[in-house]
Amino acid sequence: MPNKNNEAKNIIGVFDSGLGGLTVFKHFLDSLPDYNYIYLGDNARLPYGEKSPETIYEYTREAVEFLLESGCNLIIIACNTASAQALRKIQQEYLPAHWPERRVLGVIRPLAEHFANPKFKKIGVIGTKSTIAAGAYRTEIKKLSPQIKVLEKNAPLLVPLIEEGWAKKPETKMILKKYLHPLKTEQIEALILGCTHYPFLLPEIKKIMGKNVEVPDPGEIIAASLISYLTKHPELELKKTKNASRQYLTTDNPRLFKELGEKFLNQKMSKVSQVKISEL
Amino acid sequence: MPNKNNEAKNIIGVFDSGLGGLTVFKHFLDSLPDYNYIYLGDNARLPYGEKSPETIYEYTREAVEFLLESGCNLIIIACNTASAQALRKIQQEYLPAHWPERRVLGVIRPLAEHFANPKFKKIGVIGTKSTIAAGAYRTEIKKLSPQIKVLEKNAPLLVPLIEEGWAKKPETKMILKKYLHPLKTEQIEALILGCTHYPFLLPEIKKIMGKNVEVPDPGEIIAASLISYLTKHPELELKKTKNASRQYLTTDNPRLFKELGEKFLNQKMSKVSQVKISEL
Repeated sequence: MPNKNNEAKNIIGVFDSGLGGLTVFKHFLDSLPDYNYIYLGDNARLPYGEKSPETIYEYTREAVEFLLESGCNLIIIACNTASAQALRKIQQEYLPAHWPERRVLGVIRPLAEHFANPKFKKIGVIGTKSTIAAGAYRTEIKKLSPQIKVLEKNAPLLVPLIEEGWAKKPETKMILKKYLHPLKTEQIEALILGCTHYPFLLPEIKKIMGKNVEVPDPGEIIAASLISYLTKHPELELKKTKNASRQYLTTDNPRLFKELGEKFLNQKMSKVSQVKISEL
Repeated sequence: MPNKNNEAKNIIGVFDSGLGGLTVFKHFLDSLPDYNYIYLGDNARLPYGEKSPETIYEYTREAVEFLLESGCNLIIIACNTASAQALRKIQQEYLPAHWPERRVLGVIRPLAEHFANPKFKKIGVIGTKSTIAAGAYRTEIKKLSPQIKVLEKNAPLLVPLIEEGWAKKPETKMILKKYLHPLKTEQIEALILGCTHYPFLLPEIKKIMGKNVEVPDPGEIIAASLISYLTKHPELELKKTKNASRQYLTTDNPRLFKELGEKFLNQKMSKVSQVKISEL
């Protein structure tokens, strides 16, 4: 467990409700390997995707507080649901009141910036019930390019299917087709994978949507955006370091986290530790 | 929120990780309407079915403590996962140390007693990953009828499919067939629905298993067992009462709980209140 005090310690924190955020974190490790990281998964309380906005805010704020107290200068909320339902209030109320020098970012803004491209007329988004209900992608894209039509569709069964290891099964393909059908009918030109689990289905989704629909891996876009953010914000005092550290923390069983997590990350993990973050 | 103190108040508590336990509670209201009840759903932290045994114990103990402090003389843990992973330790360690006069029961023992019938040679069980990993049904049935062969199969996608309202969809039937196929091939004579959500699939499951396999609704069996338990345990001082009360409590949004809960219960609910039970 990290030592807690109020000093920033040249660490980037990455938070997700569980393992999904590792599909984003993987790209950070590829593109920005020389930074210290703490990855925190709230596996004991996942999934966030169908819980109420108040509960999602409370859980996310607790996790962010934990990472700030662990010395993170900057935190990326890698979870779409938490980014959609909790980030704004954390940025506008919690941080200015308690940690004015630190920064917390989400995954929706960088993806919206990428997709708010005048070459698109119609874009689709798939995500959890809560992410879609928040309309976060539509709102962010409309701010940047009001003329783009954004069609949102929740796809709540995809996370359990992926976690079950059923990405390649025919049942999953049937369910994917059902979810994607209305977006395909509307002839969208690009599709945002609005949940960190979905890149596991990238080949199947691309096959269903066809060659004319752009379906990029969100992790790549978010990592590119983080590179640009770090360049623009030297005041965060995040410095490259030799022998950069990676800490993996979970609120549930560390053995299960490591077993599945290494599949998500597609590489070996150092030690995983269990932490308690509720009701600090 | 109920007043908390240490007195028993002639109330039966029913606990579940969420709404599933209402399929059991419904039968209590039918068979034993003249008792006061508190139903508590831990929706903010559900599902329990794929979490670690330590986390499931901790969450269940907190919920049980909350119900005891709310004046429940007797608590039924309606959740199979919590019954399988937490009940024994609560009965053997927590209760004797803190609440020696109160009782906490689960759903596995009454179902095991029903199915440990010498007319059966081979019985199947379906449940969440955690319930099946605990082997609780096999252990309980073997204690009563060692000659019965018990085949257990986890079926983790059924809960999300039911919660999505997909009980009647062809995708759900395909997935059900896949899960039930090995049990059907083994020619089981009865099937235990080892998760409170599964009664929603009862017609589909019966159709797949065929006329020779008994698939009773677990709620009926558990309610019958509760009637018998109350008769045998007058020392619990649970008395029938006129204008018996029902309180519905959830750890997440009460409006969502009520909306979906009334479908599970198949009747109108009185007011639902939100409570905090973590880390008492």
